[in-house]
Amino acid sequence: MGWMADESGLEKRAANYVPLTPLSHLRRAAKVFPNRMALRYGDTAHSYADYYLRVTRMASALTMRGIQPGDVVATLIPNVPAQVEAHFAVPASGAVLNTINTRLDTATVAYIFEHGEAKIVLADTQFLALAEAAIEAMEGPKPELIEVPDAAAGYPATGRHPTYDDMLASGDADFEWIMPQDEWESLSLNYTSGTTGRPKGVVYHHRGAYLMTMGTVVSWRMVLHPVFLAIVPLFHCNGWNHSWMMPLVGGTVVCCRDVTPGAVYDAIADHGVTHFGSAPIVLNMIVNAPDTARRPFDHVVEVFTAGAPPAAATLVAVEDLGFNVTQVYGLTETYGHVTECLWDADWNTLPQAEKAAIKAQQGVAFPMMEDITVVSSDMTPIPADATATGEVVVRGNSVMKGYLKNPDATEEAFAGGYFHSGDIALKHPNGYLQIADRAKDIIISGGENVSSVEVEGALMHHPAVSLCAVVAKPDDKWGEVPCAFVELKDSADATGEELIKFARTQLAGFKTPKMVVFQELPKTSTGKIQKFELRSLAKTL
Amino acid sequence: MGWMADESGLEKRAANYVPLTPLSHLRRAAKVFPNRMALRYGDTAHSYADYYLRVTRMASALTMRGIQPGDVVATLIPNVPAQVEAHFAVPASGAVLNTINTRLDTATVAYIFEHGEAKIVLADTQFLALAEAAIEAMEGPKPELIEVPDAAAGYPATGRHPTYDDMLASGDADFEWIMPQDEWESLSLNYTSGTTGRPKGVVYHHRGAYLMTMGTVVSWRMVLHPVFLAIVPLFHCNGWNHSWMMPLVGGTVVCCRDVTPGAVYDAIADHGVTHFGSAPIVLNMIVNAPDTARRPFDHVVEVFTAGAPPAAATLVAVEDLGFNVTQVYGLTETYGHVTECLWDADWNTLPQAEKAAIKAQQGVAFPMMEDITVVSSDMTPIPADATATGEVVVRGNSVMKGYLKNPDATEEAFAGGYFHSGDIALKHPNGYLQIADRAKDIIISGGENVSSVEVEGALMHHPAVSLCAVVAKPDDKWGEVPCAFVELKDSADATGEELIKFARTQLAGFKTPKMVVFQELPKTSTGKIQKFELRSLAKTL
Repeated sequence: MGWMADESGLEKRAANYVPLTPLSHLRRAAKVFPNRMALRYGDTAHSYADYYLRVTRMASALTMRGIQPGDVVATLIPNVPAQVEAHFAVPASGAVLNTINTRLDTATVAYIFEHGEAKIVLADTQFLALAEAAIEAMEGPKPELIEVPDAAAGYPATGRHPTYDDMLASGDADFEWIMPQDEWESLSLNYTSGTTGRPKGVVYHHRGAYLMTMGTVVSWRMVLHPVFLAIVPLFHCNGWNHSWMMPLVGGTVVCCRDVTPGAVYDAIADHGVTHFGSAPIVLNMIVNAPDTARRPFDHVVEVFTAGAPPAAATLVAVEDLGFNVTQVYGLTETYGHVTECLWDADWNTLPQAEKAAIKAQQGVAFPMMEDITVVSSDMTPIPADATATGEVVVRGNSVMKGYLKNPDATEEAFAGGYFHSGDIALKHPNGYLQIADRAKDIIISGGENVSSVEVEGALMHHPAVSLCAVVAKPDDKWGEVPCAFVELKDSADATGEELIKFARTQLAGFKTPKMVVFQELPKTSTGKIQKFELRSLAKTL
Repeated sequence: MGWMADESGLEKRAANYVPLTPLSHLRRAAKVFPNRMALRYGDTAHSYADYYLRVTRMASALTMRGIQPGDVVATLIPNVPAQVEAHFAVPASGAVLNTINTRLDTATVAYIFEHGEAKIVLADTQFLALAEAAIEAMEGPKPELIEVPDAAAGYPATGRHPTYDDMLASGDADFEWIMPQDEWESLSLNYTSGTTGRPKGVVYHHRGAYLMTMGTVVSWRMVLHPVFLAIVPLFHCNGWNHSWMMPLVGGTVVCCRDVTPGAVYDAIADHGVTHFGSAPIVLNMIVNAPDTARRPFDHVVEVFTAGAPPAAATLVAVEDLGFNVTQVYGLTETYGHVTECLWDADWNTLPQAEKAAIKAQQGVAFPMMEDITVVSSDMTPIPADATATGEVVVRGNSVMKGYLKNPDATEEAFAGGYFHSGDIALKHPNGYLQIADRAKDIIISGGENVSSVEVEGALMHHPAVSLCAVVAKPDDKWGEVPCAFVELKDSADATGEELIKFARTQLAGFKTPKMVVFQELPKTSTGKIQKFELRSLAKTL
C-alpha cells in the first residue's frame, strides 16, 4: 500500500507502462539479433529478420481473412516451423492461439472447434483428414481450413485448401502488429487432455507467458544464444512457453517433427542443441537407443523433464550419457513447469543413488511464482517431514485466467486463493516437494495409502524393466491391491514372480504388486502413461 | 485487444495475479537458498536465512516506530549492509525508500528531507553531523534520526541517537511483510543530482524494479550464485537495482564502503567477485592501480560500466587485466541501465582498437524495455547512418512514475509517449546507439557541433593522459571553442602544446582543443565529472 501522500502526475503512461507480452521478445530480437539463426527444420533455416518477416506476413494474412482481435485461430500441427510461427503470428493479429493435440479423435477435435469457436484452422497435411472430418461433424459455424503441407516429410499439399505458403505470400510485410493493450488479454487456449469428461479450455494471459519466459531463463542456466530442440509438442502448454522465450535470449529453435532417438542425437551432434524439455519417456528412449542411432557430442545438454516422476534408474543412466536432467513440475493450468529441483552443488559428492533420488524430487518454486506449497484439505500447510502428504497448491503470475466458458470449474480450481493441482505430494525438510501421486492414482489397500509412483520406482530398478505403471486392482479382501503393467527392455527377460519378489525386497508387503502384466503401455501424445485405461483393464483381470 | 467473446469467470484473482515486486525475490530466496551467503562486509557474513530475518525485524521495527504505508524513510549511508537491508526492509514495511547521496551539502539534504517528507532517517555515523545539521535547518516536521555506526571502519556510535542494532533488536522476527497490493505503488524515491536548480525526486514503482531485475539477469550473462561487488552507490538509482536482483539468482552482495583499487582487487581475489558495475573512472583506477594494490585472479570479471562513455584506451587496458566490460546506458529516471552494448561473437576477430570502439557504444535496449530510439526534435527517428544525431527517447516498464510533486516537469519529460533523456546520440547502421553528448555538453564552434566525448576520446589515447574532460570556452571569433581539462598519470609528463598536436592528428581543426588545463577534475560521488564546474571555470580563463 505504498501510495505516497501526493502522487499527482505519477499515473501510468505510454512511456512507462507497456503491457507484458511475449510478442515484445520477437520485436526486440528482430532489431537486436537480425542475423542470428532463429528457426531450423530440415533444410529450412530462418534468421530472426526472416522469422519476424514471416510472422508479420502471417499476422497480416490472418487479418485480411477476417480475423478480429479476440477471435480464436486453431492449429493441428506437429513441431514444424508453421506451428512455432503461429505462436507469434496469431497473437500479433490480436487473436487467441488454440493449439490442438494432433492425436485426438474426430469427435473431441470437433468439440474443441465448436467450444473454442475457432474462425480459422491451420492443419498439417498429415492431420488434414482429421480436421476435415471434425469440421464436417460440427453443428455450429465452421472454421476456414488452411493446409500446412510438409512435402519433405512425405506430406505434399493435397490441393483441397489454401496453403500456409499462399497465406504468407498474401500478407503485408509492413503490417503493424496488434499488441495487447492490457496484459490480461487472452493469448492462447489449451484444452486439457481430460481423461474423464469433456476437455476443459485453459486460457492463458499475455502477462503470464511473458513472466514464464523471464523466470525460465534464470532457472535453466541459460545465457545468450542457446540451441533449443522442440520435443515437447507445442500443443502441450504451448511447449512450456519455450518458443516464446527463445527470442529473449537470441536462441535457435530446432524443430522435431517425429521424436526418435536418432532425431534427438542428430540434432545435438549436427546443430549443437544445448537444451530441451521432454517427458521421462524420451529419456528412456535415449538410454535404450540402438547403437546405430547414437552420435557423439562433447557438451552437456540441459534437460527439463516433467509429466511424471522419472525413475531414479533412468536418471542415472541418462546423465552418464552427457545429459544434465532437472526435474520440473507443472500442469496445463500453470503454463507448464512452475517448480524445479534446483540443484545444490553440495550434493555433487553424494553417492549416485542419493543424487538420483534428489533429482526425482519436484523441488521449489520457479522465480516467477509467488507460493507453491502442499496443504491438507483445510488449506493448512503440511509439515515438511518427508512423510505427511497433501495437495500441491499454486499461487503466482504463471497461472491461467481460468477455464473457458466454465466459471464453476474455474471457481472450484481457485478455491481459497490458490490453484488446486489435484496432485498429492510430500515436503522434504529442506522445503523441496515431491509428488507422491495424482489424487486419483493413489491405491488404497487395507486402508493404507499406496503411492503408485513409489512402487513404480522400485520396479524400475530391475535391470530388465524398460517402463512400468502401477494401478489399483479391485480386491475382495483389501479393497484395492497394486497391479503392475510392465514393458521389458529389448532382449531382456523376467517373470512376474521374479519382479514381485524383487519389489518385495524394497517395499512393505501391502505396497508390493500382487499381479504383473507384460504389455505395451497406452500413452498420450505427450508420453504420459494413460493410467485410466490400465485401471479399466485391471478391473477385468 | 485479445478479449474473447465470452470471458466469464476469467478475471484476475489471488491465485493468478500477484503484484510484481522485488520483495518477492527475497521471500523466495529465504526458502530456496536459506544457507547460501547473501551479504558480506568485512567480518560480517549473512546467509539468506539471516538476511531475511534481519530485514523482517527491521520492517517490523519501522512499523513499531509509526511508519505507515506510503511514508518515506530516508538513508544517508554508504554501501554497507544496513543500506542493502534497507532496500528490502523499508518497502516490506509498506514505506518508500529515499536513499540520499552522502556527498550533498546540508542545504540540499534539508531540501530533500523537506520535499520527500521523510519520517525516519537512517544515517551512517560518518554522515551523522550532516543529517543532524540538515534536520536542524528544516522548517517543516522533522524526521526521527537513527544512527548506523560502523566501528570497524572507524565510526563507532556517538550515543546521540537510537542505533540500527537497537532497532533490529526491537523488531518482531515473525512480522508479516506488507506487500504491495498494486504493482504501481511507490517503491523508492531518488533525487537527481541536479546540476542546476533544485534536485527532482524520481519515483520508482515496484513493477519497474522487478522487471529491471529480470531483464538484467539475461543481459549480464548471469547464472545462479554470482558474487556481486557493490561499487555503484546504492543511493544512485538504487545501485542500478542490483541488490534487488541478487536474491533472484541466489547471489552474494559484497559491500564496498570505500572504492579503492585495493578494495576491488581484494574482493575479487578473496571473495571471488564475478560481477560489478561502476563508472568508467573505477576502470581507470584499476588500470592505474599501484602494483601493491593488485592481486592475481583466474576468472573473468563481468563489468557493467556507465555514467559516461569510457575512453577506448581504458577499455583495452582493463580487458587485458581480466575484466570483460559491457558499456551500458541509462539515467536515474530509467532505474539505471536500459541499453547495453550487446556483444556479437563475430566481432571477436576484429583488431583490438575496433573492438574497443564498438565497446564504447551504448548499444541496444535491455530485454525489459520496449523501445529505445533516437529522434529529431519532431519525434521522427533519425537515420541509422552513424552521422545524424538526435535525442535518446525511452519507452518501457523500467521508467519512473514521474517526478514527485512536480507534474509539470513530469509532463515535459514524457511528452510524445516517450521519456526524453536529454542525451544526444547517433545510430550505427546495425541499430546500436552511441551517445554523442549531453545536450548541454555539445560545443558549438563556428556553427559546427563538436562532441566533447569525441575530443575526450582522442586525448585519452595519449599515453600520459589519465583522465580528461572537454567543455566549451567562449570565444570571440568562433562563439565557442573546445577547452580540455586533463589529469596526467602518476609520473607521466606532457605539455598542453603536445596534447593539442596529438589531438590534431585525429581530429578536424575545429574539434581540436584550443587550450589545455592540467588539474584534478571535479567529480560527483558517483564518479561523473562535473562539467558544469569546468564550464564556469573555462569562462574565466
